[in-house]
Amino acid sequence: MPLTGLRIVDLTRVISGPFCTMLLADLGADVIKVEPPGEGDPLRGQGSGRDGLSWYYASFNRNKRSVVLDLKTPEGKQGLEALLATADAVVDNFRPGVMARLGFGDERLQDLRPGIVSCSISGFGADGPYRDRPAFDFIAQAMSGFMSVNGGRDDPPLRSGLPISDLVCGMYGALGLCAALLGRERNGNAERVDVNLTSSMVSLLAYVASHYFATGTVLPKTGNDHPIAAPYGLFRTRDGQIAIAPSDNTFFGRLMDALELPEVKADPDFADNFGRVKHRDRLQVLVEGKLALADSAEWIERLNAAGVPCGPVYDLHGVFSDPQIQSQNMAIDVPTPANGTVRMLGFPIKLTQRPCHVRRPPPALGEHTEELLAEAAAAKRRA
Amino acid sequence: MPLTGLRIVDLTRVISGPFCTMLLADLGADVIKVEPPGEGDPLRGQGSGRDGLSWYYASFNRNKRSVVLDLKTPEGKQGLEALLATADAVVDNFRPGVMARLGFGDERLQDLRPGIVSCSISGFGADGPYRDRPAFDFIAQAMSGFMSVNGGRDDPPLRSGLPISDLVCGMYGALGLCAALLGRERNGNAERVDVNLTSSMVSLLAYVASHYFATGTVLPKTGNDHPIAAPYGLFRTRDGQIAIAPSDNTFFGRLMDALELPEVKADPDFADNFGRVKHRDRLQVLVEGKLALADSAEWIERLNAAGVPCGPVYDLHGVFSDPQIQSQNMAIDVPTPANGTVRMLGFPIKLTQRPCHVRRPPPALGEHTEELLAEAAAAKRRA
Repeated sequence: MPLTGLRIVDLTRVISGPFCTMLLADLGADVIKVEPPGEGDPLRGQGSGRDGLSWYYASFNRNKRSVVLDLKTPEGKQGLEALLATADAVVDNFRPGVMARLGFGDERLQDLRPGIVSCSISGFGADGPYRDRPAFDFIAQAMSGFMSVNGGRDDPPLRSGLPISDLVCGMYGALGLCAALLGRERNGNAERVDVNLTSSMVSLLAYVASHYFATGTVLPKTGNDHPIAAPYGLFRTRDGQIAIAPSDNTFFGRLMDALELPEVKADPDFADNFGRVKHRDRLQVLVEGKLALADSAEWIERLNAAGVPCGPVYDLHGVFSDPQIQSQNMAIDVPTPANGTVRMLGFPIKLTQRPCHVRRPPPALGEHTEELLAEAAAAKRRA
Repeated sequence: MPLTGLRIVDLTRVISGPFCTMLLADLGADVIKVEPPGEGDPLRGQGSGRDGLSWYYASFNRNKRSVVLDLKTPEGKQGLEALLATADAVVDNFRPGVMARLGFGDERLQDLRPGIVSCSISGFGADGPYRDRPAFDFIAQAMSGFMSVNGGRDDPPLRSGLPISDLVCGMYGALGLCAALLGRERNGNAERVDVNLTSSMVSLLAYVASHYFATGTVLPKTGNDHPIAAPYGLFRTRDGQIAIAPSDNTFFGRLMDALELPEVKADPDFADNFGRVKHRDRLQVLVEGKLALADSAEWIERLNAAGVPCGPVYDLHGVFSDPQIQSQNMAIDVPTPANGTVRMLGFPIKLTQRPCHVRRPPPALGEHTEELLAEAAAAKRRA
């Protein structure tokens, strides 16, 4: 695996941090999940599960080992010191300043393990007026502008039903860590990486931001329609609806040909995206008039055969029944020693030579405490 | 910079690929953007801009150089060969199979540059029944289940107003490439990385997926509310609304104290999240009754001081006026030689030692063709 042999001490909990370190663990890193005694990562007690295991917890913690340390005690701190002395990187999602208060500020980290790369995940950033505020995914969705761009023109702000700020921030943390480790490998440089939920979501504002910066105005919201392309959105068929996204004249021509609408294709009102957006409602009626003649599945076949981007709108049952998504192994079954077989999401990064796979099931709380502290003690004796 | 000295040949266009390579360029990689003659990357002609420059294009292409090559001609192919012979990685977002048809399949790539890492970005994946289908962000939002989880219980499926599939897939591409380059640095292994829009979005289904896998049922949608926590969502104040997200009893207690609602705090109906979700509507009225006594800004100060996660719901004007987001430099001004100063989004990954910065403005089409082909020819002569 690409990251085999790299050890990451993982002080994170809940979603963003554990997702970050799971991405690295899936790529081969040796991730040591440090948990407090008692309940451990709060995710262990949340969400749906089976056989005594939270599948929510499981889905963010495969390929890791778990060690229990009470960082409020001298013994716990010593355990963490021993682990850090063997590590290439450390990740935390405490609030800014907590690592230093625990006795593990940047300087101390470099003393314990010269060249160690560190990554901190926070709600708002390592500095600035809100650095000490508590932060949650929902607050970052609200403050980043993300909620303001979803929905129709006059709809209220709307979050995503996924913890998207947590996840995107975790991805940036993994990328920053991986880049810093690569830089260290090539140039010997240590590095500290900071990512935060709010900035992560701001970084995704794309053309909505470039429009705002260039014009000083906020693009009106368009729901499922595209602000500057039509037809684009959801369209009713005989038995449901499908997503169609022809974005330029070529795709529009193909769509009209496939729908057998030569007169619409030739209509000067629809000659370019500007006209098609202006006359979007009329175009929607014309398209749906034809789509009403057959079922969604048939149209999806026919339109794709004609080279028109289109597809079904799936709920989760549809997602995991789809032959393409199945072909990409986006649901996998992971056997565990004590909690049966857990189904979880698969690997989004496909490596041809050394594919991501499950080397370890999600660990029980503290399952590897003895093993890891013994390893670290042996390494210390050797050093 | 962490990726200084690593050269990436970038055959991508529009959003997902250019975002992927910009993330790597921002981290220090030498990214060579290969564009077709004529219009180049179609993004150059799209979106809002100023002074003859698309700010949409600019915002995805800083820190890169541009070379124009017509890959349909022998001269263009020779130019690409020369560039690949100097590269550490190559990224494309052609449909699967196009690289091979152009004469740059995996084996040929390894011949041209032994150990080169390659990354392909597609809509559905490198194999499977839909591999040849055209794909766009919107179709991936529809087919991944992402649209199905947004909105209220009975709302229709809703996309995000951001091209979230393109962006998330670009992030996975950058992470996969970076990991593969790190693996090559440590172990000498070449690798091929494949990412696709649909699987990328499926990978973010988080607890919605674990609930589905564990129970076989799809969680009902809850709009801005949290399915298993309350109070959580948007709440009206005297002059607007704010986002509040206390997720457990501790935060709930703090919120009730800050609102001076001891009788609500003590009400057995609200003793835990289960009860609070069950009586969500009544709780919303009680909370908003107090919030109506002051403006949003005052409540945000008071609740944060009390340790309750909360914040404003910003549109883009609010986002870029906020002192914290300003402190994180999430809008930056980039001077260009011929198109004035471009404002664009800043860097989500904060590096302490060697921060991301703009080394190069977005390139003009083919600005570096001569320079790069001369460099590559000189490298060949030396070899």
